This record gives sequence, structure tokens and C-alpha cells, in this order.
Amino acid sequence: MSSYPLQELASALDGVDVTLDPRRIRVKSRDRYAISPLLRDMLADKQADAVVTPKTLDELKHVVSTAVRLRIPITVRGGGSANYGQSVPLKGGIVLDMTAYSGIVALGNGTIRARAGTLVAEMDLAAKATGWELRMHPTTARIATIAGYVAGGTGGPGSVAYGILRDRGNIAAVQVLTMEEQPRLLELTGPDAQLAHHTYGATGIITEVEMPLAPAWPWIEALVAFPDYLQAVRFGVSLAQQTGITRKVVSVQEWPVPRLIQPFAPLVPEGHSICSTMIAKGNLVDFEGLVAAHGGTVVSTAPEGQGPYGAPIWEFVFGHALFQIQKTDPRRSVIEGFFRAPDLPALVERVHAKVGHYGPMRMEILRVGGDVVGSGAPYFVYENPQQMADLVLAMQEAGAVVSNSHSSNVRSVGKKEITPRDLAFKREVDPHGLLNPGRFEADDSADAKFAIELPTDQWDKRQA
Amino acid sequence: MSSYPLQELASALDGVDVTLDPRRIRVKSRDRYAISPLLRDMLADKQADAVVTPKTLDELKHVVSTAVRLRIPITVRGGGSANYGQSVPLKGGIVLDMTAYSGIVALGNGTIRARAGTLVAEMDLAAKATGWELRMHPTTARIATIAGYVAGGTGGPGSVAYGILRDRGNIAAVQVLTMEEQPRLLELTGPDAQLAHHTYGATGIITEVEMPLAPAWPWIEALVAFPDYLQAVRFGVSLAQQTGITRKVVSVQEWPVPRLIQPFAPLVPEGHSICSTMIAKGNLVDFEGLVAAHGGTVVSTAPEGQGPYGAPIWEFVFGHALFQIQKTDPRRSVIEGFFRAPDLPALVERVHAKVGHYGPMRMEILRVGGDVVGSGAPYFVYENPQQMADLVLAMQEAGAVVSNSHSSNVRSVGKKEITPRDLAFKREVDPHGLLNPGRFEADDSADAKFAIELPTDQWDKRQA
Repeated sequence: MSSYPLQELASALDGVDVTLDPRRIRVKSRDRYAISPLLRDMLADKQADAVVTPKTLDELKHVVSTAVRLRIPITVRGGGSANYGQSVPLKGGIVLDMTAYSGIVALGNGTIRARAGTLVAEMDLAAKATGWELRMHPTTARIATIAGYVAGGTGGPGSVAYGILRDRGNIAAVQVLTMEEQPRLLELTGPDAQLAHHTYGATGIITEVEMPLAPAWPWIEALVAFPDYLQAVRFGVSLAQQTGITRKVVSVQEWPVPRLIQPFAPLVPEGHSICSTMIAKGNLVDFEGLVAAHGGTVVSTAPEGQGPYGAPIWEFVFGHALFQIQKTDPRRSVIEGFFRAPDLPALVERVHAKVGHYGPMRMEILRVGGDVVGSGAPYFVYENPQQMADLVLAMQEAGAVVSNSHSSNVRSVGKKEITPRDLAFKREVDPHGLLNPGRFEADDSADAKFAIELPTDQWDKRQA
Repeated sequence: MSSYPLQELASALDGVDVTLDPRRIRVKSRDRYAISPLLRDMLADKQADAVVTPKTLDELKHVVSTAVRLRIPITVRGGGSANYGQSVPLKGGIVLDMTAYSGIVALGNGTIRARAGTLVAEMDLAAKATGWELRMHPTTARIATIAGYVAGGTGGPGSVAYGILRDRGNIAAVQVLTMEEQPRLLELTGPDAQLAHHTYGATGIITEVEMPLAPAWPWIEALVAFPDYLQAVRFGVSLAQQTGITRKVVSVQEWPVPRLIQPFAPLVPEGHSICSTMIAKGNLVDFEGLVAAHGGTVVSTAPEGQGPYGAPIWEFVFGHALFQIQKTDPRRSVIEGFFRAPDLPALVERVHAKVGHYGPMRMEILRVGGDVVGSGAPYFVYENPQQMADLVLAMQEAGAVVSNSHSSNVRSVGKKEITPRDLAFKREVDPHGLLNPGRFEADDSADAKFAIELPTDQWDKRQA
């Protein structure tokens, strides 16, 4: 039985959508963490005591006020598409399902603003009707909410041009509600918006998000095959560097990934690695010139979403690629290697030489802090945590930085720079430590400990 | 007296605007090369025998056919805003004034296409009426023609985001007329468009140019002051790297340049270096956050073209900055240093330590081949060629690459990669070697030699 006063909660929230139904609680206490064999075990028994689904800001304020008064923690949830288990409540309490608090609030002057629960794809579609689109989106855009993306995401398609959410300018504004008995709405603009980014909902409840827009080019999805993986990497890095070729996706996958991703199999010649790309239609001639210069072959071109593989090509890259592969081989797993070097292909080559035998490598090419960088690792057949730790060490020795994609709190994942300002903000907006407890505590010793700790790198290393 | 059959030319071109008037010939045989004290001497006695100004494609073909038959060379001229003297005829003959062959041909689907003599600013304005603009333009956009820009330019405002004209994708297409008795129109698209770029009109007569477009943001011109030059450089490099902040100009000028450029004087505190920028209005909050993080002060913001300095801020950067400075101190000159390094500010610091005593340094920050690079040198008081050569050597020793902005042919300026394909194309389109002779010959020994050769770097070094 829960230690929280649930009946009192339910009575106080009369009129609000509150459920204590165990099946619904079970479903809403999970996200996509099962993609990780480690998180699958660690989070198996974690779940909420109640799911609350506010429809209006007034309802939301009432929920927050009541929860604070009763000292019941709140774990905010969007579309449930996260991979780190961020929205799985570690200490029970309320899962706050924000999907009913949705809708576009404003569109124009280079930005789009929407309520927390709005699907990312819905915002993108609305913007596209005006000739614009989001600068970047998660590969889960069709199920992810915008607040979930800002609270738990990193980057995605579009990041090869604009960088990631952490880069200045990529989140225009975030409105959050404080976790106080008299909750306050705070508008965080520009650099301040970062206070609510990648904190897994622990630094205020995101109520609205404003995102900057980019021109909506007619995108062509082009799949390029190369006889050699490193050749594909060199092409990918070069394409990412082409500021004159408008590109949205550059994702390199080593053979036999094109077999493991079954819809690609008929398109890619035996033994070939691929680079999956999205290119503005008007730049196709220049793109083909670059492909030729690198000895590649364009094996498929199609307008966005109309490729012969049955889904937008951006559902075959970044974290999504592993989903596609697990359909064929559920034992495959990955870790998150981060590659940054003046000679990026040479670094990938060194790491590949060291860990290529674990399995075929992926390498998403994107920009972070203005630099073209790689994000990738081998898709290996998972055996045990020690094997995974060995892989982490081997990649680090060869020069890659490794995040812990098999952990579930902000510090141990290691993707966020945490400044004194972040901690002060956490204390201000969540004075009782009730937001997603264990995920990002002002006092780091209060963070949840996970049974298995990988020897991964923290934020400071990522700056290297 | 000219050795060319001018009377025969004039008769054959009856009905076409041909002038043998010495005053008009004199004016049309000059460009802005006088900005260089070396070119001022070297090109002083060079001029055409006739100026021909075609209004239609038929007239142009007739001119070309006649000139080829009579073996009279043609030097093509646009707005006459070049700095290398590219459009000064070295061997007399015809100056072909293309300014009457102008007008926008097509606009839409992400590109704009115009006839050779169209002003760059006119194209930009036409595009802006549809929400778009040129990706980049010369600082001379208000007087330069689009063909002149492609034939003799490099980059400019916009290059910090999109790279330079040489980068793949930044010229969509070029139509050229061959220099043959039966002239042919060739359409060069994508990578092929480079065949007509930066060859000073020696590889075919450019008749139309198609340029890719970028979204036309409402730009804010922001002038930022820093107590220290290297601090301003670090800020500029960081701003250039901010893929999430939409920026069009990043130009660093060391104190006392803000005094030498008189309209800036009332705005900039004593002893302060500046970074001149253009930022999309929607990114201003994030921009200000970056300024604060670098210890700078925004001393002026204004919508594009409405700053208190009386002209668009892009007329105070790149080559144009020297024009502004020469209004105050006509003795000042520059050389073109090119800075590329993983730690760009450190390279600038090394060069500054070595040559800073020559005068205050400029540093345009832009992207070339995807990398953030610097272009700059001290504004020094010119004394003699040896002094200039010493400066070149000192900058090279400290790690910069130096182009020869005081020369006038393609190879000696050193900014173009010349491949066998370029030479084959030159032979194909100009079999008699009549286009701008001496500027870019298929046989490099036939290039004009200039009296003073600086110890500058050729193309291969720029790749470093």
C-alpha cells in the first residue's frame, strides 16, 4: 500500500481526471526504457499510485497545490517515448499525464508556441502549413509531446544544421509552473529556457513551450550506399560540413545494419554501409556531386515520408534505429558514444578499430556547440553489465566520450551541464523536492542510485 | 594606336552600343583596385580600346561572334566594384559592359535567377518581397552585378552561416556564352557552376546566374564593444559557432578602428574593440546572453539599414571596412590573412602578438568548408612593397595563410582551386584565349606577370 494520502487526494481533486486503476497506472508508469536491458530490470517495479490528467491550467494549478499540501510527489509524463525511463516514478505518487493539456497557442514571427501536451508532429505540421517547420524534432515526433522533448530530449533530425536543444537559441521560451502550494507561472526566455531543459521534469512543470522555426524545404530522403563503413563516415562528416547544402539528417550505419533494418534490405547491396540523409530538393545536384566525389551510390530517393521503407527516414535514425533493429534482433543494444575531434573520421576509425568487433556501428552526424560531431557506438548483442562496461572503457580508451544511456537520472546520464544557477532554480521552483524525486535533486546525494553504474563520462568530459 | 581592327568592329556592330570615346573607355576600364597601393601603379596604364554594352542576348552573341572573328579580346565588366582589378583589360580590346543586360528571370522554389547585369541588391530586394533573400551578398551589393559577384567575388555577409561561393550549393546555376565564332549557351548547374566562379570572366561570358535563397529574417544590426581585442575575437568565434542563433555578419575590428570608421566613433567607448553583427530579431535574447557571457556591451542595435552610422552595417565589414577607414586615413592598406585552426582564437592571438604593431586588426568570422575561420590582418600604413612582404611573412610564420589581394590574376591571388577540369573547360569555352587575357590562361605561363610578387600562399595552402 502507498504511504501517500490517496483518498484525500482523490477527494480534493474532484472533477479532475484522476485514476487509481492499477492497469492504467501500470501503463502510464512506463516509457520506452525497455530498449535498455539494464533499465528493464532496474525500473521493473517502479510505478505511480495515481495518474492525474489535467485539461486546463486551473485544473493543473489545483493538482499542484493539492499535491504540495499533501506532500505527494509528481512525475510529469508526456507521450511516454523517452528511452532513459525519465518518466517512471521512482517514489510512487502522482504521474501527471500532460497529454490532455495541448494545443497550439501562437504561430508566427519565426516561432511556434504550444501547450505542454501538444504532439511535436502536430506543431511541425501546423508550422509547415505556413512554410515553416521546427528546426529539429525527436525521431518520436509522432508520439512525443513538446514538453517531453524539452524536458527529456537532446536533439534529432535537424541537429546537423542547428545543433541540439542545449545550444543557445534552440528553445525560444518555456513556461513552467512552480511546485508550490501557491503555484506560480514563470516565463523562461532565451538562455533561461535551459533551466527547464533535460531535467526530466524536476525543475518546474512545463506548461507551454515556444520553439524557433526553420524554413520548410521540400525534403528529399536519400539513402546512399558505400562499400566501406569509414568511407560512409567520411562522406557523412563532409556532408554535415556543407553549409551550402541544406541537410536535415546525416546518419551512417555500418553493414549489416541495412540487413538488420529489414525495410532497407531490398535497397542496399550486400556488404554496403549506408548514409541516410534528408536534403533540400533544390540542393540535390550538389548533393549528388558530393556523393560521387566520395565514391557512394544513391540507392533510393523519395520525398519526405514516401520512401519504399514505409516510414519517414527519420524514424530509422538516432535512437529510433535501435527500435528498427530490435524488430529483427531483440538482443541488440547500444551505448552512447560521443565523438568530437578536429579530424572526426580519424577518431571514428580509431574507435572502430577497437570496438568494431562488438557489432556494426552507427554514427549520427550532427552539430553540437557549432562543431560537427558524431554520436554512435556498435550495436552489440547484450550479454551482461560487465560486457557493457568493457565496451564503455574500450571506447573511452580510443578517444570517445560515453554517456550512460542505461541510467535514469540527470547526473548519471551525464548530458546536462549543471551550474549553481540550475541548483538554485531547482530549489526555487520545487522547494519540497516533490518533482520526479531521485532524478535531479538539489543535493546530488539525494539522487536515486542505480544498481549498476557504468564507467561513463560526466558532463565535463563532453566539453572536451 | 591599338593593333585591333576597331573600325571594322564598330561597323560590324552597327546598332549595338559601342563607344570609342576615350573618357568613357577610361572610366569603364577601372574598378576599385585603387584601394591597393600596388595595383594602383601596376594597372595605371591599362585600358580598353572600346566599350560595348549589349542589351539583348542576340546583341551579345553578335558581339562575341564578331570579336572572335576579328580576334579582339573581351574583358567582361559588371558594376566595377572589384578590388583586384579583375575587370581592367590587360591587353586592351573590348570591355564588355554587361550592366544593360539585366533583369530577374525567375523567382521561386528556393532560388532566384537573373541576367548577368542585374544588381545584387535588386535580386535581394525582389526575393525579400517573397519572404526570402540571397544566402550571401557582397558588401558592394548596391553597385555590384550578380555575374560580377560570381566571377570575381568570394563571400560576404551571410557567409558566417552558409559558407562562401566556392562551397558546394551556394551557386545554383550559371549560364555562360562560349567565346566562339558560333557562340553556344552552356547551362552549368550544381558543382559545374564552379567552373565560372572566381575566374574573372575568363571561362565564358556569364549571361544568367541562379542563386539559392535563405529565409529573410528581420535582421537586427548589433554593435558590441569589448575592452580587449582578443575578447572580441573569442566572442565572434563563439557567435559564429552558435548554430541556434541565426546570424549573418560577425566582424571583429580592433581599437582604434572604431575611431577610424568615423560614424562608429560616437558609439564606441575609448579603447574598445568591436564586433559588428547581424542577428535575427527572434534570437536577440539568446544573443544578449552570449554577449554577457563574454563580457561585452551592446552599444547599438537597429533594424537592418537603420543604424545611427548612416548605412547598412554590412557596408562596414569585409573589404568595405577599408573603404570606410580610408575616408579617415587614406594611407591604410591591408593584406588578406586566412585563419583556420581547431583553436581559432589562439591562432589569432599568435598572429596578433607578431603583427599587431603594424596596426589594428580586422577579423571577419565566416565559414569555409564548414569550418569557422577568420579572414583578416592589420590595417597598416603602407610604406613600400618590402614592408608589405615582411608583413606577409610575419603572418605566415605565426600560422596564418595569406592571399595576394594586391594581384590581379586568378593564380596569383590564390583563392581558386584549379583542377584539370577547369583548364579543359577554359580551353573549350575560349579556344582562342580571348577572354580577359592574362587573368586565367589554360597555360599558366601565359598569365600576366605583375611587377611585384608577394610571398603569399597559393590554393593548396588554403586547404590546410
